[in-house]
Amino acid sequence: MHNSVDAALRERARQVIPNGMWGHMNAARLPAAYPQYFARAEGCRLWDVEGREYIDFMCAYGPMVLGYNDADVNRAADAQRAEGDIFNGPSARLVELAELMVDTVAHADWAMFQKNGTDATTTCVMIAREATGKRKILVANGAYHGAVPWCNPYPNGATAEDRAHLVRYDYNDVASLERAAAEAGDDLAGIVVSAFKHDLGKTHEAPTKEFAAGARSICDRTGAALIVDDVRAGFRLHAGGSWELVGVKPDLAAWSKAIANGYSLGAVTGNDRFRDAAGRIFVTGSFWYGAVSMAASLATIRKMKEIGAIDIMRRMGQRLRDGVDAQAKAHGVRLQQSGPVQMPVILFDDDADRRKGWLFCTEALKRGVYMHATHTMFLSAAHTAADIDRTLEATDAALAEVARQFG
Amino acid sequence: MHNSVDAALRERARQVIPNGMWGHMNAARLPAAYPQYFARAEGCRLWDVEGREYIDFMCAYGPMVLGYNDADVNRAADAQRAEGDIFNGPSARLVELAELMVDTVAHADWAMFQKNGTDATTTCVMIAREATGKRKILVANGAYHGAVPWCNPYPNGATAEDRAHLVRYDYNDVASLERAAAEAGDDLAGIVVSAFKHDLGKTHEAPTKEFAAGARSICDRTGAALIVDDVRAGFRLHAGGSWELVGVKPDLAAWSKAIANGYSLGAVTGNDRFRDAAGRIFVTGSFWYGAVSMAASLATIRKMKEIGAIDIMRRMGQRLRDGVDAQAKAHGVRLQQSGPVQMPVILFDDDADRRKGWLFCTEALKRGVYMHATHTMFLSAAHTAADIDRTLEATDAALAEVARQFG
Repeated sequence: MHNSVDAALRERARQVIPNGMWGHMNAARLPAAYPQYFARAEGCRLWDVEGREYIDFMCAYGPMVLGYNDADVNRAADAQRAEGDIFNGPSARLVELAELMVDTVAHADWAMFQKNGTDATTTCVMIAREATGKRKILVANGAYHGAVPWCNPYPNGATAEDRAHLVRYDYNDVASLERAAAEAGDDLAGIVVSAFKHDLGKTHEAPTKEFAAGARSICDRTGAALIVDDVRAGFRLHAGGSWELVGVKPDLAAWSKAIANGYSLGAVTGNDRFRDAAGRIFVTGSFWYGAVSMAASLATIRKMKEIGAIDIMRRMGQRLRDGVDAQAKAHGVRLQQSGPVQMPVILFDDDADRRKGWLFCTEALKRGVYMHATHTMFLSAAHTAADIDRTLEATDAALAEVARQFG
Repeated sequence: MHNSVDAALRERARQVIPNGMWGHMNAARLPAAYPQYFARAEGCRLWDVEGREYIDFMCAYGPMVLGYNDADVNRAADAQRAEGDIFNGPSARLVELAELMVDTVAHADWAMFQKNGTDATTTCVMIAREATGKRKILVANGAYHGAVPWCNPYPNGATAEDRAHLVRYDYNDVASLERAAAEAGDDLAGIVVSAFKHDLGKTHEAPTKEFAAGARSICDRTGAALIVDDVRAGFRLHAGGSWELVGVKPDLAAWSKAIANGYSLGAVTGNDRFRDAAGRIFVTGSFWYGAVSMAASLATIRKMKEIGAIDIMRRMGQRLRDGVDAQAKAHGVRLQQSGPVQMPVILFDDDADRRKGWLFCTEALKRGVYMHATHTMFLSAAHTAADIDRTLEATDAALAEVARQFG
């Protein structure tokens, strides 16, 4: 494989970007074969700057849900932009989108909009504290809720005080949740739960009914806010909110990623119990009222409903899971697929150093399939059965290579 | 004036948005005549949902710098979107934009990109703490640096710990800055300074050379980071960074608003002393790598340079200032225009309750000119002499009304 264009860009980047790149899209975290820079995207396909084509199972780490560059979403965005995007206030799209979120999301009596998932989770925590007058926030060990100091997975650049009021529990462990609530005592403002357990490099787990009911019960008992972080999973599992699957309604939920098919948008939804507090906090951003992203979101949510996007993702995800399971058995490779089929992670047995996982992904990459060995992957409504079957040809060869190298 | 469309939208919003609206674009903070919702924008003109046209001096609170819906910027954005916006990594636009920022901004050896000004200021603070291993951040009384708990102008939803390591000083007061630095002692991580003093409702002040040199000197002495918050003023005063005007280079600077003429983008620039620390912090967002906003920013910065955008804004701002000054004298109304002419604020004497200020603005609004009585206003490169002269007709009538009502 030639990587001269990508390598040249990386070299230029090292001059003008600290460490060459930042954040979750820093390819230094990935095997050398993975491209850092991309040139084009359409449907479920990506092209890197060398012109190599991939069937993509990361979907830009989630935002792409209907297909890259979806024509219907772009048409709605363009129609809005012809009128305008930013003004000295919002456009009517904001009201329409808040109404659509309230119609769509089961627990929602109201909505507010931001630009990124971290904006949304941070806003939820502020609302919980303002509503309760309390300070402690329960968060699960290993969970990701954003990249600002209060929730950053790394301590660099943060102070101890940024996390002074976090209390940790283990996801799906009701006893640990009760212990954390007891530790918070009468200072409990809220419990943050991921839509499902999707920690990096870990087996993904749906919330158990006991855990979800337990979290709801603690909040009902104490007045704390139950906050579902649906940033990663939102609109891929259940249009009404991911915890509809376990029959529990949160008080607040954070949304972003898939909400506008790649246009930059975040959202917070909440129920009436938290409406007044949400109206008392000051949260804002220069671009939070942009009409184009909201027009794109309206088109995205409507199209997802029209075409049954979640069903498509579920069927395609199941086809991928069944295919990889059969191939793994045939090759005698032990692996574990977890997460909802439309948001899978594939972890190999006896692979603490991830050598098997990244070998598998690298072999698939060479064959035109972009997967990730430790992060949640994403299906989209643009993946077809033919794409999955083409993918399975690549995974079959990749698993053969894993079997060859690791027996 | 008929307001039926706006009123109907406000009523619908009250059902589905806490308090009817949030943040700095909540028109509840403005006189009743001000529209909440906008329908269209082009050049320096805005249309509200009733179809009323305004010459705009808020520029969407800053982002609009070349004119709403600028055709050149849109063309660059469209060309990029045809290829793609989000991928599993950035596009080459990110490298090109980092190079352009380093070429353009005097103190910059590197750049990183975000989505909003708050992202940028928060990233600067994280870098300062990571680089120094220290915690205290000096911020000016009354200054605005964003809307998350560490810097929020309101306490709602924040804990005391969120601000545990802030130490306050008064802008342009070297002695108070020295006192704050002494209070921080050997725990000083950084000093945050606005590009100029542009506090809400207060006389705007350029930084004095003594103040700027004093801030630089404290940082040189202690190893702390001098952080210029150029979010509001960036690319309106000096393309190389606003503190070029006082001959002082910061270590870090935060940018947003005008950087991409309304496309959502933030940036941090820094010097080599802070490069390693910037490479060690984890900051990211789902949409931080979007290529369309970066293509728009490349086009915006290049066009600003080509047409001499800052000179245009300065000339048009001076024309407005001179005109209003002459009118105020003619009407016997005492007022004070402050701030750089391209970012003015107009404050009336003996107007603690802002009645004169908002009367003036409301009378101008009725005559098709959108101004703000307490917030920094913004000129753009799309304002022409004819627009300013048309504006001065409105301000003349508005000042006559102020004179009539307040003598």
